[in-house]
This record gives sequence, C-alpha cells and structure tokens, in this order.
Amino acid sequence: MASPNALTSQDDDFPRWYQDVVAKAEMADNGPVRGTMVIRPYGYAIWERMQNELDARIKAAGAQNAYFPLFIPESYFAREAEHVEGFSPELAVVTHAGGADLTEPIVVRPTSETVIGEFMAKWVQSYRDLPLLLNQWANVVRWELRPRLFLRSSEFLWQEGHTAHASYEEAASYARRIHLETYLDFIVNVMAVPALAGIKPPRERFAGAINSLTCEAMMRDGKALQMSTSHELGQNFARAFGIVFQSEDGQSEVCHTTSWGASTRLVGGLIMAHGDDRGLVVPPRLAPVQAVVIAVREDNDVLDACGSVNAALQRAGVKSVIDRGRGSFGRRVTDWEIKGVPLRVEIGPRDLANQVATIVRRDDGAKVVVGLNDLASTALTLLDEQQAQLLALATTRRDEATTDVETIEDAIAAAQSGFARIEWRHLGESGEDQLNEVAVSVRCLQRPDGTTPQNPDEDNLIAVVAKSY
Amino acid sequence: MASPNALTSQDDDFPRWYQDVVAKAEMADNGPVRGTMVIRPYGYAIWERMQNELDARIKAAGAQNAYFPLFIPESYFAREAEHVEGFSPELAVVTHAGGADLTEPIVVRPTSETVIGEFMAKWVQSYRDLPLLLNQWANVVRWELRPRLFLRSSEFLWQEGHTAHASYEEAASYARRIHLETYLDFIVNVMAVPALAGIKPPRERFAGAINSLTCEAMMRDGKALQMSTSHELGQNFARAFGIVFQSEDGQSEVCHTTSWGASTRLVGGLIMAHGDDRGLVVPPRLAPVQAVVIAVREDNDVLDACGSVNAALQRAGVKSVIDRGRGSFGRRVTDWEIKGVPLRVEIGPRDLANQVATIVRRDDGAKVVVGLNDLASTALTLLDEQQAQLLALATTRRDEATTDVETIEDAIAAAQSGFARIEWRHLGESGEDQLNEVAVSVRCLQRPDGTTPQNPDEDNLIAVVAKSY
Repeated sequence: MASPNALTSQDDDFPRWYQDVVAKAEMADNGPVRGTMVIRPYGYAIWERMQNELDARIKAAGAQNAYFPLFIPESYFAREAEHVEGFSPELAVVTHAGGADLTEPIVVRPTSETVIGEFMAKWVQSYRDLPLLLNQWANVVRWELRPRLFLRSSEFLWQEGHTAHASYEEAASYARRIHLETYLDFIVNVMAVPALAGIKPPRERFAGAINSLTCEAMMRDGKALQMSTSHELGQNFARAFGIVFQSEDGQSEVCHTTSWGASTRLVGGLIMAHGDDRGLVVPPRLAPVQAVVIAVREDNDVLDACGSVNAALQRAGVKSVIDRGRGSFGRRVTDWEIKGVPLRVEIGPRDLANQVATIVRRDDGAKVVVGLNDLASTALTLLDEQQAQLLALATTRRDEATTDVETIEDAIAAAQSGFARIEWRHLGESGEDQLNEVAVSVRCLQRPDGTTPQNPDEDNLIAVVAKSY
Repeated sequence: MASPNALTSQDDDFPRWYQDVVAKAEMADNGPVRGTMVIRPYGYAIWERMQNELDARIKAAGAQNAYFPLFIPESYFAREAEHVEGFSPELAVVTHAGGADLTEPIVVRPTSETVIGEFMAKWVQSYRDLPLLLNQWANVVRWELRPRLFLRSSEFLWQEGHTAHASYEEAASYARRIHLETYLDFIVNVMAVPALAGIKPPRERFAGAINSLTCEAMMRDGKALQMSTSHELGQNFARAFGIVFQSEDGQSEVCHTTSWGASTRLVGGLIMAHGDDRGLVVPPRLAPVQAVVIAVREDNDVLDACGSVNAALQRAGVKSVIDRGRGSFGRRVTDWEIKGVPLRVEIGPRDLANQVATIVRRDDGAKVVVGLNDLASTALTLLDEQQAQLLALATTRRDEATTDVETIEDAIAAAQSGFARIEWRHLGESGEDQLNEVAVSVRCLQRPDGTTPQNPDEDNLIAVVAKSY
C-alpha cells in the first residue's frame, strides 16, 4: 500500500512530482486570487536563507538597501518605449482607492526601473554622487495566465538592484560583478547548482536593456530555469528619467544604469535541480534545518539523549532540531525525507546502551553509526561531503545531458531531454525562430570556455539551447 | 548665517522640524503616488535593525515566518462585519489586470486577518495543530488623506503576527506575551523609549477585536504615538472563516485567534522621541552606525590612523564607519549629528602626535580625549552609558509632562502639552466624546501600578489621555 505521503515519481510525471513535493513538503499553497501564492513556513525558511546569503553578497558589492513604493503612476511606464511594451500585458491596475475613483490609474509595480529612475534623477547631481548602488527586497506583480507555484506566480518576492554609473564601462563591469560574485557564486556554492553563466541573445533581453546577463540551470527533467538576470540598461532609462550628472570637467552627462534581480523562483529551481522521488533535497549550506534528531522509541532516556545530541550539534554550529512529529517512526522519517533535511540522527534504546547513534544522509541514504562523543564532528564532515557531492552529481547530470550539435535539427532533438550547444553564428535570428516554433529557445550565449561574453558580437560564441520553465 | 543643514527648531514648529529631519538625515522622500513613501538607505538601515530585533523576539516566542498574498478577494472582507466597516474607507482596489477587467474586484491588503484566516481553516484540524503561530513581514496599503512620512503613509512596511489557539485564555496569554516580551521589551530596551503598556478603551479597538493591547510613547512635543498593537480577536474571525478543531475529547470547537503588528511608524517614533534641534538621536543598541571616525585634517598619516581606529572599533564589536563625506570638517560633523550617530571619533595631526583621539557623544555633546590603545573599550562604555542615559532622560521628560487629574476639563488642559492620567470610571464613553471633540483621546487604560490590565472592566483603571499622531 502506498504511504499517505507517496509522491508521483519524476519519470512518470515530472510536473505532477513537482506539485506533490511543493504540497507535501509544506512549501506553498495557491492563494485565493488566481496566480497568487501562500509561502508556508518551511518554504519561507528556505527563502529567508536565500535572502540572507544574497543580501550579504549584495552588501559586499557596495549596494545599500532601500524601499520604493508598490504603486507607480501609469504614465511612468510610457516613458521608455520598449519597457512599456514589454510589461503592459502583465500589469495589475488600481483604479479606485480611499472610496473614490482615481484620476490617474496606478500600476502595481512589476519591476521598479521607472520609479527608481525618477528618484535617481533627484539624488544624482555630480560625478561625486556616482556610482549610486541601490537594492530593494520587495513583492512585485506580473499577471500570469499559466501560474505555477514559485516558478510563475502573479505576485512574487524578489530583490531588485538598481545602479547608476558615470560610464558604460563602469556600468557593464558592475552588472558583471553582480552576475558572477552575487548570483553565480550563491547558486553554485550555496545552492550546489552548476548554473551556466552567459548573456541573453538580443531578442530575449529584458524590456529596455542593451544587454542581459543570465544564470541558467538544468532541472532534473533536462529543462532550463533562469535563476537570475543582470541587465545593462545603457542610457535608455537615464534619458527617459533625466538621470544626468556634472562630470569632473563640468560637462552635463547622462548616466548608465543597471538592474538585476533574483526571486522566489529560486525555490522552484532548488526543488527541481536536486529533488528526487523521495522529495526535496536541500544542500547543507542552504538548509534552514541541517539535521533532525529522532527518537526511534520515545522512552525518557532516549528522549534525554536526543536532547543532549541536539544541543551538542547546535553548539558545533549545526542547524539542528528535535523531531516533534506525530505518528509512527517510519512516517516521521518519510516526512523529513520529503522536506530534504540533509542529516537524520536516529537514536534508539540499544544505540543508547552502546553510546552510539545512526546518522543517515538525505542525498544517498548512506548510514553511519557513530559514537555519541564524535557525533557533532562527524555531522559537520558529512554536511561538507554532502554539499560537495550534490554539486558534483548535478554537474555530472548536466554534462551528460548536454550535447554539442552543428544543426538546428540536432539542437531540437537534443533539447527534448537536455541542453544543446551550437555555434551562435550557425543559428542567428532565423534559427531562433525555428527553435521557438517547437518551444525551444536560446537560454544563453557563452564563450567557448564557458565564461560570460561582453556582448553577442564576440567571435565564436556558443548558444545553449533548451526547453525551459 | 545659517548652515545649509540648519533645522527648524522643535520649539518654533515641531511638525516642520520633523520634516526637516526626515529630509536632511536622508531618511525618506514622498513617493509619486500621493501618500506613498520612498525609504532612503539610512532610513531603511534603521528599519532593518528594527526588523532584526523584532524578528528575533518573534521567533523566540515560537512564531514562524510565512508569506500570504498581497491581493485579497473583496468578498473576504465582508465576512467579518466590524472588520469590513473599519477598513472599507481605506481600501485600494484592483479592477483591471493582465489586459482585462476583473470579474471580482481585488483588494490590496490593508491587513491580512481574512486571507490568513482562510488558510488557518485549512491547516488546523486537531488540537494537536494548535497553537498555530505565524508572522509575516510585508507591505500593506491603507489610503491616507493626510499622509506624513513614516507616521501615516498609504503604503507602509510592517510585520503582522496571526495566531490560533484552543482557548480564550491561551490566546489572551499569547497576545500579552507578544505585547510585553516582543514589543515593550524592544521599545524600552533597544529604542530607549519608555512607552506605556496598556489596553485600548473599547471604542479604540482594532476593527473586529475583543481586546487591543497597545504601547504608547510620548513624543518630544508631548503628543502620544501608538508604537505597536496586539489584538485578542476572540472567535470573530475564526467563526467567519471556519477555523475549527477537534478537541482532545473529540468535540468540534472554534479557535480563538490573535493578531499583532508594528510598522515603519516606529521610525517616526524614534525621530520624535529622541531627536533634538541638531537632528536625529539614535540609541546605540538600535543604531546601524554606532561610531563614525573623522579625520580633522586629511593628511595621509591621519587617514591611516583613522583606518586603524575604525578597524579596532569593528574588532571590538562597534558598528563603525570612516567618514567619506565631502566639504569642510564642520559640515561633515553637522551631517553626522543630523543622522544621530551615537559617537564621533575625531583625529587630527596633533592628536596623532599624542596618540590620542577625541570621542564626542551625540546625546549631550560631551567630549572625551582618550589614548588610541584604550579607544575601543572606552567607546563600548560610552555606548552603554548613552543607551542608559537616553532612556533615563526620556523617562524624566515623560514623567514631568504627565499630570494626574480628576476632571475632564483638567485632562484636556494637561493634554495640550503632555499626558493626563484620570480614573477610567470618571471618564466613560461620554467623557471620551468630550475629549474627542477637542482632538484628545484615551491612549490606553492601565492598572494603577502601570501594568496592562486583562480587560477594561477591572477595578480602578487609569485612563491615559493625550493628543496623538
């Protein structure tokens, strides 16, 4: 008989497996308004860990947090032509407030380039005010016709960075720094996801950008997920909003701006990059709970020992909790597996008599019997090993599902189950059209060595082609 | 000649002084949509410190963070009669989204009792699921006709806690715990604001509550500011949303719920509780910047010494920065005073020759010349002293501006410049009417010993009466 927590298997129906994990790991629920999302405490704890890690990197890059309004006058969007065209179909509009109809409709922000541009123009006067490096943690709204929890929701949470610089080179260099040192570093070294770093082909850029840098990760079904983007906005928004400065030699010049963001979509990426048929797998460095201590039988001596072990783990710096679950031991084990907690420490009466406990790894199920005195140090080692192992396995899966091809037909064939790499000059926009017709797209352009190009005109660029979320 | 940063004095025009401080300390700006607010990096850094302190206390009280949608179906509000009546005039309504008119209008949340109630009903089945203790950090919208930055803005940031319990007693006890251990503790011991803790008289309760606990602080103009509220919601929302559970003996019972919140209004309270004619005064435990190191003259040896001193302060755990300001030494000193940074460390060539520096306290301007080797330990002592001193001074100001009275006429007279205390049984609702006619109100009811009563029917309660923000 299937356990009440049985998940659909990934091979049977990957989208259904994803829904099952989101529900049964108690990550999120659908909100009452179509496309909105309730993030439950366990899902939110993972998002809080992502926020902490990203926020530290953003501050290390010199940006300061601020907060700009949710409501933007509709007229602001009209000032940048590509921007308004790109976002208009997704906007939610407030027409009534405080008991009266509004004279000018108000847009609920889908992103904040426009309103932040307005204030940058006020705050920037001189070259001494540059660079201006801002970030905000906020909710944004983009109306979704086909919503999926975390991946595409009408409201989502994110950070959006916005910066103004004195020159094209400085702006491009800062966007690249965020792309590599904030996003790619977090995604690879904390999430253990071997994302590809590159730039978007021109037609896939953000509405209003002159260049968009992206981190693209492979999910376990071989599809791509865009994990973060960093945009060079050139002088488009600076001209539209009048972000000008007096240069060192007294000239009036137009700023070069950037914007960059990562969202609760990363939680969806985590689920699909590492999850397996037993549920979520959370890499130790990201996990809000790194170890759970479970009594195999709930007698007082065993519970006391669980308390001591939990305290010892916490003293050693492990984010450890004691299982307070209900139901059978087996059911509780299954629940923690679904939540993807990296280590499970099991203690029973016989273990206690022998002064040992069993540590079970979530990734490969390996069991280690360890003396209670050595337990914390062993746990730390196992967490490090698991972190490295998850990245290594994901890298192997990615590389095995990536094919170098020379024709569009072969690219489309390879994209049915993974990534295809094809020379960008063999593809071009007509090639992109052919791909798009069968729901395949260019995820990013990379240099042959896998690094991020400055622009799509560099020689010998490789297009990474895939189906995507 | 007035310096470019000259502030209006508090005595001349307190509201103007407040606006000046908000602008010149670079705390916030008005947003483009009426009543909205841009929180600038320094204002946001103070809010982040408030968030960190409150969040730690909320988690210590066992509540878990989650996130519920910004958008709530309009029909949800109609389910609790007092709630819809209280909030309808302030709602912002989305009528158009994704390029089409909506069939049911959507409300932008003014508070989340309704949508969280809907999900509590799904998640609570049995007494074992209780208490359910949730919190969220979010933006909310309440349309304001007379907005003031931080104090009354159409959009503000806050945390809102929502809990469900098996009994009236447990709910009341939890609301009281949050009121005292989360809010009052933070306000008194971190913000150094000697707020009064009490309950609201019935007509001042939150829309839908059976009891509202409040922390009320005195501003420097003698007016009151509500710093936080914690509401016992009884079974009103639980009945409206069907939050029911099976009790230990198998009966179906209706939950008792609470909600509690504190917002960016606290930043306004900070400004007005401690600020003086030289600007903001931030208590050391709250300050995002506790010390600034300034070179009296920018020669290389002095700048090197500033770097060493800054590093030593940071190693000692002081949140220290080096001044990177522009303009004259005097101008930079003024700028840091306006921002209310607790300690200013000044180093000049002569100081360096003598291996000393001057530490200047923001609160009373006292200067201490200290050897460079002792500087960090002296700074720590001065920070502790300043924290204690700010609370002591604010307590003295509050007590000196509080008058015990016996008649409504005397209460109104005393409320022109401070708080009046009058026996609640001498006042009653007709007395409240008389107060309200002259813009005075009952801020809270307290026991004679200053503690928070269980309900307004206790004997011998004292009503604290004041003008308020």
